[in-house]
Amino acid sequence: MTFTPTDYLPYDFANRRHIGPSPAEMAQMLALLEVPDLDALIEQTVPEGIRAAQALDFGKPKSESELLFHMRRVSKKNKVLTSLIGQGYYGAITPPAIQRNILENPAWYTAYTPYQPEISQGRLEALLNFQTMISDLTGLEVANASLLDEATAAAEAMTMAQRVSKSKAIAFFIDENCHPQNIAVMQTRAKPLGIEVIIGAPEDLDAAAVFGAIFQYPGTFGELTDFTPQMEALHAAKALGIVICDPLALTLLKEPAAMGADIAVGSAQRFGVPMGYGGPHAAFMATRDAYKRNMPGRIVGVSIDARGNRAYRLSLQTREQHIRREKATSNVCTAQALLAVMASMYAVFHGPEGLKAIAQRVHRKTERLARGLTEAGFQVVPETFFDTITVEVGPLQSAVMKSAVDEGINLRAVGETRVGISLDERARPETIEAVWRAFGITRKDDDFTARYRLPENLIRTSAYLTHPIFHMNRAETEMMRYMRRLADRDLALDRAMIPLGSCTMKLNSAAEMMPVTWDEFALLHPFVPDDQAAGYLEMIHDLSAKLCEITGYDALSMQPNSGAQGEYAGLLTISAYLEAKGEGHRNTCLIPMSAHGTNPASAQMVGWKVVPVKTAENGDIDVVDFRAKAEAHKDTLAACMITYPSTHGVFEETVQQVCAITHENGGQVYIDGANMNAMVGISRPGDLGGDVSHLNLHKTFCIPHGGGGPGMGPIGVKSHLEAYLPSHPARGNGAAGPVSAAPFGSPSILPISWAYCLMMGGEGLAQATRVAILNANYIAARLQGAYEVLYRGGKGRVAHECIIDTRPFEDSAGVTVEDIAKRLIDCGFHAPTMSWPVAGTLMIEPTESETKAELDRFCDAMLAIRAEIADIEEGRCDRASNPLKHAPHTVEDLVGAWDRPYGREQGCFPPGAFRVDKYWAPVNRVDNVFGDRNLICTCPPMEDYAEAAE
Amino acid sequence: MTFTPTDYLPYDFANRRHIGPSPAEMAQMLALLEVPDLDALIEQTVPEGIRAAQALDFGKPKSESELLFHMRRVSKKNKVLTSLIGQGYYGAITPPAIQRNILENPAWYTAYTPYQPEISQGRLEALLNFQTMISDLTGLEVANASLLDEATAAAEAMTMAQRVSKSKAIAFFIDENCHPQNIAVMQTRAKPLGIEVIIGAPEDLDAAAVFGAIFQYPGTFGELTDFTPQMEALHAAKALGIVICDPLALTLLKEPAAMGADIAVGSAQRFGVPMGYGGPHAAFMATRDAYKRNMPGRIVGVSIDARGNRAYRLSLQTREQHIRREKATSNVCTAQALLAVMASMYAVFHGPEGLKAIAQRVHRKTERLARGLTEAGFQVVPETFFDTITVEVGPLQSAVMKSAVDEGINLRAVGETRVGISLDERARPETIEAVWRAFGITRKDDDFTARYRLPENLIRTSAYLTHPIFHMNRAETEMMRYMRRLADRDLALDRAMIPLGSCTMKLNSAAEMMPVTWDEFALLHPFVPDDQAAGYLEMIHDLSAKLCEITGYDALSMQPNSGAQGEYAGLLTISAYLEAKGEGHRNTCLIPMSAHGTNPASAQMVGWKVVPVKTAENGDIDVVDFRAKAEAHKDTLAACMITYPSTHGVFEETVQQVCAITHENGGQVYIDGANMNAMVGISRPGDLGGDVSHLNLHKTFCIPHGGGGPGMGPIGVKSHLEAYLPSHPARGNGAAGPVSAAPFGSPSILPISWAYCLMMGGEGLAQATRVAILNANYIAARLQGAYEVLYRGGKGRVAHECIIDTRPFEDSAGVTVEDIAKRLIDCGFHAPTMSWPVAGTLMIEPTESETKAELDRFCDAMLAIRAEIADIEEGRCDRASNPLKHAPHTVEDLVGAWDRPYGREQGCFPPGAFRVDKYWAPVNRVDNVFGDRNLICTCPPMEDYAEAAE
Repeated sequence: MTFTPTDYLPYDFANRRHIGPSPAEMAQMLALLEVPDLDALIEQTVPEGIRAAQALDFGKPKSESELLFHMRRVSKKNKVLTSLIGQGYYGAITPPAIQRNILENPAWYTAYTPYQPEISQGRLEALLNFQTMISDLTGLEVANASLLDEATAAAEAMTMAQRVSKSKAIAFFIDENCHPQNIAVMQTRAKPLGIEVIIGAPEDLDAAAVFGAIFQYPGTFGELTDFTPQMEALHAAKALGIVICDPLALTLLKEPAAMGADIAVGSAQRFGVPMGYGGPHAAFMATRDAYKRNMPGRIVGVSIDARGNRAYRLSLQTREQHIRREKATSNVCTAQALLAVMASMYAVFHGPEGLKAIAQRVHRKTERLARGLTEAGFQVVPETFFDTITVEVGPLQSAVMKSAVDEGINLRAVGETRVGISLDERARPETIEAVWRAFGITRKDDDFTARYRLPENLIRTSAYLTHPIFHMNRAETEMMRYMRRLADRDLALDRAMIPLGSCTMKLNSAAEMMPVTWDEFALLHPFVPDDQAAGYLEMIHDLSAKLCEITGYDALSMQPNSGAQGEYAGLLTISAYLEAKGEGHRNTCLIPMSAHGTNPASAQMVGWKVVPVKTAENGDIDVVDFRAKAEAHKDTLAACMITYPSTHGVFEETVQQVCAITHENGGQVYIDGANMNAMVGISRPGDLGGDVSHLNLHKTFCIPHGGGGPGMGPIGVKSHLEAYLPSHPARGNGAAGPVSAAPFGSPSILPISWAYCLMMGGEGLAQATRVAILNANYIAARLQGAYEVLYRGGKGRVAHECIIDTRPFEDSAGVTVEDIAKRLIDCGFHAPTMSWPVAGTLMIEPTESETKAELDRFCDAMLAIRAEIADIEEGRCDRASNPLKHAPHTVEDLVGAWDRPYGREQGCFPPGAFRVDKYWAPVNRVDNVFGDRNLICTCPPMEDYAEAAE
Repeated sequence: MTFTPTDYLPYDFANRRHIGPSPAEMAQMLALLEVPDLDALIEQTVPEGIRAAQALDFGKPKSESELLFHMRRVSKKNKVLTSLIGQGYYGAITPPAIQRNILENPAWYTAYTPYQPEISQGRLEALLNFQTMISDLTGLEVANASLLDEATAAAEAMTMAQRVSKSKAIAFFIDENCHPQNIAVMQTRAKPLGIEVIIGAPEDLDAAAVFGAIFQYPGTFGELTDFTPQMEALHAAKALGIVICDPLALTLLKEPAAMGADIAVGSAQRFGVPMGYGGPHAAFMATRDAYKRNMPGRIVGVSIDARGNRAYRLSLQTREQHIRREKATSNVCTAQALLAVMASMYAVFHGPEGLKAIAQRVHRKTERLARGLTEAGFQVVPETFFDTITVEVGPLQSAVMKSAVDEGINLRAVGETRVGISLDERARPETIEAVWRAFGITRKDDDFTARYRLPENLIRTSAYLTHPIFHMNRAETEMMRYMRRLADRDLALDRAMIPLGSCTMKLNSAAEMMPVTWDEFALLHPFVPDDQAAGYLEMIHDLSAKLCEITGYDALSMQPNSGAQGEYAGLLTISAYLEAKGEGHRNTCLIPMSAHGTNPASAQMVGWKVVPVKTAENGDIDVVDFRAKAEAHKDTLAACMITYPSTHGVFEETVQQVCAITHENGGQVYIDGANMNAMVGISRPGDLGGDVSHLNLHKTFCIPHGGGGPGMGPIGVKSHLEAYLPSHPARGNGAAGPVSAAPFGSPSILPISWAYCLMMGGEGLAQATRVAILNANYIAARLQGAYEVLYRGGKGRVAHECIIDTRPFEDSAGVTVEDIAKRLIDCGFHAPTMSWPVAGTLMIEPTESETKAELDRFCDAMLAIRAEIADIEEGRCDRASNPLKHAPHTVEDLVGAWDRPYGREQGCFPPGAFRVDKYWAPVNRVDNVFGDRNLICTCPPMEDYAEAAE
């Protein structure tokens, strides 16, 4: 029998699932561009000398089901023991309702950072809950909306103290009882900034000698100390006191503010977020009201909208999006929004009485554990504790550790003769009995009499989580509806394209996401022995190899958990290399004016002097100026930092020249990987002359943005730099210290990027790049004429994003770029990147995952907006009261009196907007000035809620 | 140190997660009811003689994390082999995007049956896609929106053929090549209806002797037959021809309609739904246009709304909700909506070319497998096949089967000397090689030349899935957004209370749902050996024991997969028992007028005569009439069917009396378990005199409604009936035949009910009942005065639901019960049950999971509606144009000209409605009459889509 087989591969993930446009759509798009095929477009876009010599070859790509089968197999190589290692990471229970409705829900995980507050009210409320929770627990007035991890938060606190302190001292004191990774990351940070680190016991603090001091509470070995005397001494010396604290312990123990602390930092991991072999988790920072404007990171605040209704927004936003470049002292950019949301929901779920009960149970179990050990003759320190004890075992340390592993338990080796044990909310009587057995004790844990060994002077007396949001009815039905309501207020990728230039908001597929919540990836402590993490290590090894092949580098570090951290780590690597070469004096960094704001900030952080390089009229690096600056600084040139393709969305033809000039003058080349989505499979930064690059796995490699984090920013380096990559105390020291709390950053989200590579294959990845470029050029072609598309390559093409100019409309129609951004909300879109890299422009990046239909919906909306601008320009529409000025339009506009010179229909249903499925912004335009003037960063009082409910 | 411990248990699932009202809220509610505590309320509600003697004791309840740990452990006792058993169940790949965004998404799984079309447009569209898909694949004009399973669909087809056929014959022909469970279920169904079953080879059909005939295609052993001659013969004899078909095979093979079939049935399981040890899956039925009004089950149709816009609805709905009682011939009620939605999305995801490619790959693999066997000397039958072959192995059958198991493969034992093998989309070259090894063949599966062994005369030539919905861009981004858009159109439990009387829409918690999608539960074939299903069997055993303790019965069958199937199975059990006692002549069934419509329908199905019993004025059974009827029919009395508490929501004091009368007159007592949520832990039907009851696990025991299925309706019986419970051919025969395709109905959703019992514990379950009664009485108390609450118990209390009378408003204000139901949509609620059990009333069942705040929101809405009615009554508002008549209000109303005598604000934001988070119905009121007159049951043509897009 003859039968014509179809050549359709139902499981071709790259072309049928990940890449948006169908072959037929691509043909139409190419026709509009008047190019015969994708290859021809790439030839016009990417200069020949830039293109990679060889195609990527990762073997046969996997289907979704093959991928999940493979992932399951690899995950089983991780052994899930009960880890009582502590040291900043604790077993936690993620309430299933939170796992399903937040962590596994694309409405939450595909959202972008809430820069556009009108479409972000849901996650802004959740993050405000987080801030309120942290503020309450620490007792300090203002908290931010999360930081990357506890160790970097501690380092940020150190530099903040330096900024704020009026002390003239240049030294900083670190409590020797801080977790080792916290100390190590602060040391790394301190060195290039010239901060002298003094490590010692709290009682040995010489306050007059320091600008600040940091203490861990509870200490890494479990001790509980009242730091009030230290705080008093510090304040007397005009220095600041910082406490690294455990939020669960704070439900029972005296809060840092009550000791007089100026800053508190810590990790919210144990509030319902799995350990995940090190991350991601949300760290936090809180401080006094007086210092709030010096606090790094994002802060959610309360403002009003155009109707005067309450609305949330990111406060002091300009300082972040336009990081203070040469004056920067922090490069914090990515936060851990999704994890902060989870932690805040955990607190809403349990409420203060629930958190307190959890803490009490953890403590009582620790007391029972300690009592059993003491009664068996072991020496347990300290005398009082919360959840962590240290046991003296003399020469038996390794025997006890091994015996524990045999019982399915990981303990912590402390020094040569002690063992550390930290309990958590997952601990059960069986856990305690297993630990006892590891110490040779046969005993039932069956005496549940409540006993406490908390120090009397440290019992918390103040209230916390008093806000009604933490006292709502917490039946799961109500919680589920609360999470749904918040999600529905926001516009994320699960409803519309988010064409943010430089942010690469592509598909985060369900298959890629699934392994993240498997126990075998979720439940590992970052410091377990390697034989328990074989699956993780296999994945990290293979993903690193693939990323090296993609970038043309020789080695890779997974440690940085954000792009900015990657930059910082990359520059540290260069710095350590130069020092080893005897060129430690090199400290000049050339950075083009058009660079991401984090670039100069990162350079500052390694103690370098930033020398800006001009940008030519066409957006390219001014090579003449570059050469002049390089030669002028040839004796001190450490590095240049460039972005490729450029932040103007162009494949500059001179990139190799710029790299060569840098090398000729003794510098190393840092190529920022922010725009890697235009390069994968087509061009390799390592081939262009780069010595280091970071990759934003949360952009190009499919880790979802999570509403503002998590991120991953691994760095690839050429072989001469490999020895200088970040090290970690848990894995042996190296030439450079650690930049993150965990050795591999945030490993539990790496399955996403690995799955992406495995399902796409080499050719699929290259095709994604080609289509990303096609999509951007299609938008540029459709909008050209109505808008001026700025910056194109030699042959008139843009790369994977395009910049359109909206500056002329300010004069011609009184329309700002913000008006256009807000009007796009009416059309059902998140705005493109506003005013970056050029003020008054929009930078549009569609990515390869958007279909032609969605691109057309967007272009139709943009063209309709242009027509509305023309109506103003030509006098058909009022300059002050028009659809752009009143955007976004809300249901409140519709239901109230309509006094606009245009109709309801025009206002609410511009082209692009869905009819039945229209997204309605929950608030009208948010007043930014009001919010910054009246900075409120915790949940508004109860009366406001009552009003809102009306 | 002294420290006051909190007695808060953070993991008290019953009180803190499942039960809505907090202790403080309960105190307020009890105060309104003027009772001191819950016990006092129960004393007033449940007559003392009705209450259970002992409290339930299930040991210590598990926390969510303990539950998941336990479930994981039990699940591991199931062994996940590759099952190539076929026989109606095939390995399938659930696309991860569908799993995450539908199966694991409460917006889909917590929805109710779409009786209120305005809030159900999303799932109605998905089900219309399902119907269109089935209609296209079978070639028949009309399809329904799913049936319970293939075997019951076949049985329904048989009885439908009997209704429709103009032949006088009483016999029905069954192709001997039908799957054994299909034959067995049809035999069970045929017997009490007096249908004579003839089983034989298709070529032996004597068309003149039958009213209909059914054939399996492909046959159970893989054969492919063109049934055109049989169809012609049947039509000549005025009989109907039915084909049971495999939808995947139909993408390659001639469709049933092209052979002349009148009805086609089958299972859509392999369209992306896991086998789940037997279910749930969506079965389907399609028929000619001429017979559409005779087709059982739900049919989605296209109509228009009040603005003339397209809107979907359930067609011919009245025939279902008010099943034709004494005239009923089918009791089909529950469908498999969630699974039908998944299957339809699978088709949308792959499109016709994708489905065809999958089918071709499955076939080519089967061809390779067969060729390998043939070349090794094995005799493979049949000559042509799709995915199933049968291999002659002589005396080696058990050796080959065992050898296959050792290779991780389950094969099918056919007769004594043959082995059956069915491949599916999960099969890989490794699978084929493993099968070969089981036959002793060492061979690589590496020749991928496309070869086909489909019969020339059965190659499909017609097109299918031509509708644009199956040709949309299927990039995952688009699919995800499509699923989200549809979900957003609907109102489900994740956004609001669904106070449907008799439907028990309670919390379906995330922890309960999680195990359902674990491989160990999802991937088992229903006919695997018991040692591979030890986890399932442990769960079924323990859950059965708990349900017996809850109900007071001695044995339980999990086989029925809906409440109505449970009724039917229960009556069959009684029937078999009576027959065994030599009382097979007993065929009278007493049923009160107020019974669920399925009761008389089920009685009809077992061949009984229904004798209705009067309902007294107060809604109770008229005991005098009952006694009179029982005595009048004492010689033939088979059973009575009663519901407890009554369908009027009252604990009748006479229930034991009614049971005694029945027993005295030789009958058995069937107590309908629909209202079991008022009894668990408080009263046991088995103690009241019941001999059989079914339990709706999808009501009382937390299986979500899934938008109209899945369901589970196990029956509990007293010990004398145990031997007569349904049997199953795969597990040995019994006195009664099977009622479902799979031995345990739909086992993969049983983890939900088991988890519920384990987390609640005995006391928690009883407390849930108490609070369900509290919530209902609270609503009754708040609404009394504004509405008359009909039917109360002796002490003025209602049970777990209450009925309010809206009949007076028809005269006083021209307001119907439907107007009130639609107005509730404006308030953000699904309406209570309308006009049942009493026309012109609303039956309200809040369940225990709703908080006081949500109850108050509902009562506020109801009171505001009553005030609006008063405005009409008192002339302040127009009788024809008022907020009730125009409800639900939509955004279209707001954006268009407003010509109503009331304001936009009043129309759209009545009390109860959320302000920012308002749910907007996507259509105005749907025109039911138009839809039934113009029955369109497949997707509307493309032009309509184009219009809608504008």
